[in-house]
Amino acid sequence: MQYIHQNDLTKMTSRYRAQVINSLSGFKSANLIGTLSNDNINNLAIFSSVFHLGSSPALVGFITRPNSVERHTLENIQQTKQFTINQVNEDFWQEAHQTSARYSAGECEFKATGLTAETIDGIKAPFVKESRLKYALTLKEITPIQLNGTLLVIGEITHIICDKAAMKNDGYIDIESLNTVMVSGLDSYHTSKRLSRLSYAKPDNKPIPLSLNGELGNT
Amino acid sequence: MQYIHQNDLTKMTSRYRAQVINSLSGFKSANLIGTLSNDNINNLAIFSSVFHLGSSPALVGFITRPNSVERHTLENIQQTKQFTINQVNEDFWQEAHQTSARYSAGECEFKATGLTAETIDGIKAPFVKESRLKYALTLKEITPIQLNGTLLVIGEITHIICDKAAMKNDGYIDIESLNTVMVSGLDSYHTSKRLSRLSYAKPDNKPIPLSLNGELGNT
Repeated sequence: MQYIHQNDLTKMTSRYRAQVINSLSGFKSANLIGTLSNDNINNLAIFSSVFHLGSSPALVGFITRPNSVERHTLENIQQTKQFTINQVNEDFWQEAHQTSARYSAGECEFKATGLTAETIDGIKAPFVKESRLKYALTLKEITPIQLNGTLLVIGEITHIICDKAAMKNDGYIDIESLNTVMVSGLDSYHTSKRLSRLSYAKPDNKPIPLSLNGELGNT
Repeated sequence: MQYIHQNDLTKMTSRYRAQVINSLSGFKSANLIGTLSNDNINNLAIFSSVFHLGSSPALVGFITRPNSVERHTLENIQQTKQFTINQVNEDFWQEAHQTSARYSAGECEFKATGLTAETIDGIKAPFVKESRLKYALTLKEITPIQLNGTLLVIGEITHIICDKAAMKNDGYIDIESLNTVMVSGLDSYHTSKRLSRLSYAKPDNKPIPLSLNGELGNT
């Protein structure tokens, strides 16, 4: 095993350290956030920091830097109070990665990457047509993280669009069947291979494999 | 495609809704958080909300509920200001899931699950010996999320322990080679299959596959 102490971290180049530290949290979700600017230009940017915050109300959060490549996303959300989150799948993971390039505010990442913008009634922010699980959110709160100047953006889910075949009997959505990808480190993309669903853990019993529909017995 | 509106969410049972909403953020990291209580009892609990916050300083955050099954973790961190995060791998994913059972404060999840506690000089919080990538953190901040009463716990990384073979030339850690697992929904576990690393995105070029060591050319 290799031991790295805090002193060693400060001696690394910033790029090397970013690779190390970004590998530590484990696999990260890969999502495209869609927004509309005041000038009616669609914006699309990949984020690996989207996470579940609660189910009732249905809240999702993500981390952004105030003055980084993702600033168009933040500005647009502050102005329009709306955004979409679109799971990245195996059909467009390279186009999704390409949205992290520093396009100017006037350029549209949909056009630049060939992804297709899609809107629904009542939601101005664009969805990614190629995504098979996506949802719209209303901005609820932007919490500054004083420790490093990042921001936690929290939205409440208003509309969900999901490939019907992936929705299982107990509410579980089989995102593996949607070929949803994930990220490790800064730039590695992966698909998944299911081990199993497991029963709700109780102190006196070992967990039991569940079927995809959440039934006892791994069938 | 299936459309679900906010009104539909409120009509779902809380368990069904939790399954749906927990599936939306994409694949989630699977980590065991190790802490020590004031009574010197080791605690271990699985979390799927650990995320990267920044590399300099090296900050990692996770979400917890104030009065939930994970409260021992929170109490111990508040008291000792220290915790460890241990990536879950394919060798002990079922034991890791079992730590989510509601054990009483006097029970030790290491003993209950058969996982092995390991300590190093200067760190009282226990590591999981079976984990091949783990690190110790000092508590920096606990930020309440007013919207739903959850807490964002932020720690700064002080010590990293990693299987040497997984550390690549440019700092990337190949967590796939460590058989690190991930979670979807509330209870589904998965391993990963790499698509590729990709070069840093620039507006005028398509991304190029990188080798595992971060070199151009997918070799």
